[in-house]
Amino acid sequence: MGEYKEKAPFSEHVAGNGLLSRRIFLEGALVAGAAGAAIGAGISGARAEPLDVPAWSKAPGSPFTPYGTPSHFESKVVRIFANPPNAPGAGSARTPHQHLDGMITPSGLHFERHHSGIPDIDPDQHRLLIHGMVRRPLVFTLDNLSRYPRTSRIAFVECAGNSGALNAAEPVKANIQQIHGLLSCSDWTGVKLSTLLDEAGVDPAATWVIAEGADSSGMSRSFPIGKAMDDAMVCFYQNGERVRPSNGYPLRLLLPGFEGNLNVKWIRRLKLSREPQMAKDETSKYTVLLKDGKAWQFVFPLEVKSVITHPSPGHVLKGAGFYEISGLAWSGKGRIRQVEVSADGGKSWTPAILNDPVLPKALTRFRAAWQWNGGPAQLQSRATDDTGMVQPTRAQFIAERGLQGYFHFNAVQTWAIDEKGEASNAYV
Amino acid sequence: MGEYKEKAPFSEHVAGNGLLSRRIFLEGALVAGAAGAAIGAGISGARAEPLDVPAWSKAPGSPFTPYGTPSHFESKVVRIFANPPNAPGAGSARTPHQHLDGMITPSGLHFERHHSGIPDIDPDQHRLLIHGMVRRPLVFTLDNLSRYPRTSRIAFVECAGNSGALNAAEPVKANIQQIHGLLSCSDWTGVKLSTLLDEAGVDPAATWVIAEGADSSGMSRSFPIGKAMDDAMVCFYQNGERVRPSNGYPLRLLLPGFEGNLNVKWIRRLKLSREPQMAKDETSKYTVLLKDGKAWQFVFPLEVKSVITHPSPGHVLKGAGFYEISGLAWSGKGRIRQVEVSADGGKSWTPAILNDPVLPKALTRFRAAWQWNGGPAQLQSRATDDTGMVQPTRAQFIAERGLQGYFHFNAVQTWAIDEKGEASNAYV
Repeated sequence: MGEYKEKAPFSEHVAGNGLLSRRIFLEGALVAGAAGAAIGAGISGARAEPLDVPAWSKAPGSPFTPYGTPSHFESKVVRIFANPPNAPGAGSARTPHQHLDGMITPSGLHFERHHSGIPDIDPDQHRLLIHGMVRRPLVFTLDNLSRYPRTSRIAFVECAGNSGALNAAEPVKANIQQIHGLLSCSDWTGVKLSTLLDEAGVDPAATWVIAEGADSSGMSRSFPIGKAMDDAMVCFYQNGERVRPSNGYPLRLLLPGFEGNLNVKWIRRLKLSREPQMAKDETSKYTVLLKDGKAWQFVFPLEVKSVITHPSPGHVLKGAGFYEISGLAWSGKGRIRQVEVSADGGKSWTPAILNDPVLPKALTRFRAAWQWNGGPAQLQSRATDDTGMVQPTRAQFIAERGLQGYFHFNAVQTWAIDEKGEASNAYV
Repeated sequence: MGEYKEKAPFSEHVAGNGLLSRRIFLEGALVAGAAGAAIGAGISGARAEPLDVPAWSKAPGSPFTPYGTPSHFESKVVRIFANPPNAPGAGSARTPHQHLDGMITPSGLHFERHHSGIPDIDPDQHRLLIHGMVRRPLVFTLDNLSRYPRTSRIAFVECAGNSGALNAAEPVKANIQQIHGLLSCSDWTGVKLSTLLDEAGVDPAATWVIAEGADSSGMSRSFPIGKAMDDAMVCFYQNGERVRPSNGYPLRLLLPGFEGNLNVKWIRRLKLSREPQMAKDETSKYTVLLKDGKAWQFVFPLEVKSVITHPSPGHVLKGAGFYEISGLAWSGKGRIRQVEVSADGGKSWTPAILNDPVLPKALTRFRAAWQWNGGPAQLQSRATDDTGMVQPTRAQFIAERGLQGYFHFNAVQTWAIDEKGEASNAYV
């Protein structure tokens, strides 16, 4: 046998309350530090023990299936929602980020926000009309649309009301799914809207596009023609397969980075005009109410934001020692440049590592290394995007906006860890 | 109203039989060319027509569900497989790439290759043993493993036998799913194997790792310790959620770019040694048989390869005109640098556009623009990776390897398009 080599000790604390250098992720140097840190040489308490041969190793398993599903042991990993008896399809269903990792949201767990339920659309009967200020009004079948050049991109969709529960005067008792579950990320494929508008011939005086869904609420939003000609897409595919009914089958508008409900599901109509439509979903809702009672309307891109998914409420830390802090960061305006993490409620910060690929207007997974001392801690993350925008503190956010509205809430959020290792929503 | 502006005509042919410049994807310039090309001003035949209000726009849709599924109109988008009566869990299930787009494979359609079915593993009872030439043999529970720093990456998994049907002397009548369906790509999350090996303390004399699954076939493969310390991962998450049972729940080994069956599912044991195990799955199978009857053993990384998914058998082109040619390219050795496309059986080539992100050891979606003249065509794609390796022609492949074996087949493949617009597997 050769000689065993231990890696060099590693216990470089880089911010208060146990945050360790992200070099751990780059160098994998986890062996116990000189200061007696519990990481390495037993970070997890794994130890040699006799191994049984379990039942499933002794008999053939189950056969192939046409379309797979998760393990029945994961039956609690589901969306939460209410189906109110008078309007079973109105409301929202939320992604369980406390149970997920990586950057892609599985399509079965993508968040939903419907205004009149999920229509059961026959794709052969579905039509997309482009009209208004165009040279040639056009009606597209799915067959027509399949002829155009396509593009794919990984992009997040977030409801403008996501995280709105944090506008409460006192911290709500809620987990990440309840607070931040109106956020998901997929690999989307479709035709650029600019391609279809070029076919129709855009009147240069047109400045707005009105998008309408084929659901029975006729959900409508208006957006500037500049977005239509930039990165807007009409999508048929989500995470490789056709878009799910709950996400707009057979066609969904994707306006990367814009408020969720602008990404109109079941898209049936795009009208070019000189004015926005002033639809109910851009007047009575989806406006940003300010301190003085006035409101911002047509605030399209979602601001830079981040949230820690692990640990978060429902997870219980099992004793002092090493833990990974992990979460998601995103910006409707571009790419995430940096995420910093604090374990002492924002007194000190250290940069997290960003998991490749870091894509514009997509969820970015960040990771930080933490040596929990077993005492109270306040975990926070703070993202910066490549336009230089930084997530505000709660105090900064309130100073500008007040807390009258609940749209576009993007302040830094705190999970307080108590001595039992339990996490809860807190204000610092 | 303002003046309508048409984009400049575009009909730049860049290779034989109708291939157009990829500038179409960059500039979106699709309007009819001077040469009277049918693209633009009606590329798809879409036209204004009266629009009905369909039934699904008149009544509320269906309510929320905990875990979503595809539309029932997509019920044919499934894996194909056989469940032989004497061994229902032995064989393979294939991904329907003719129905997919983008880079991520939905987990429900990920290919499978099982040797004794899918075990139903209780994650609380599952164990991972690391032993052999280590200082401290360790047994990990899932709880233990959840304590370590994680990483995520998008990576393909491909069975070494994928595309082996192309070793037939005459072209088989088969579609892409039948020929190339043992290939999928996911966002994987887990712990780097090097982190766990550091915990166990590797004897520097150890040169091989033997990996064993918890299925009742005890599927085993050996791989070099260098791979273990490089980019190998022990994964719990696939496309955001826990790995599916059919892909190794609760733990799968990921050796990015290596033959599929080295990515041992249901991983239960990793033994460090001086020698490979010479398991049945690396002696009787998964070796590359050569012309002279000798075989290459332990050929780990999958060679650079590509295939056109659209159009492919089962799709029918509806008349002369513009079509997108789209497909997948990948290499077990790195990143795709270039994909070229031919419409005349390899006489002339033009570079396709690579859809971002182009990631190492991941599927890369490529796209090319084609003006079909309605006559016979032979579509091919040829990938080059960033090590400089180029996909060989069929003749080059046969000259080196012969066609005795069916593993690691990576030659350029042809879909012949006939005058009816139908595609079929062909040799040129």
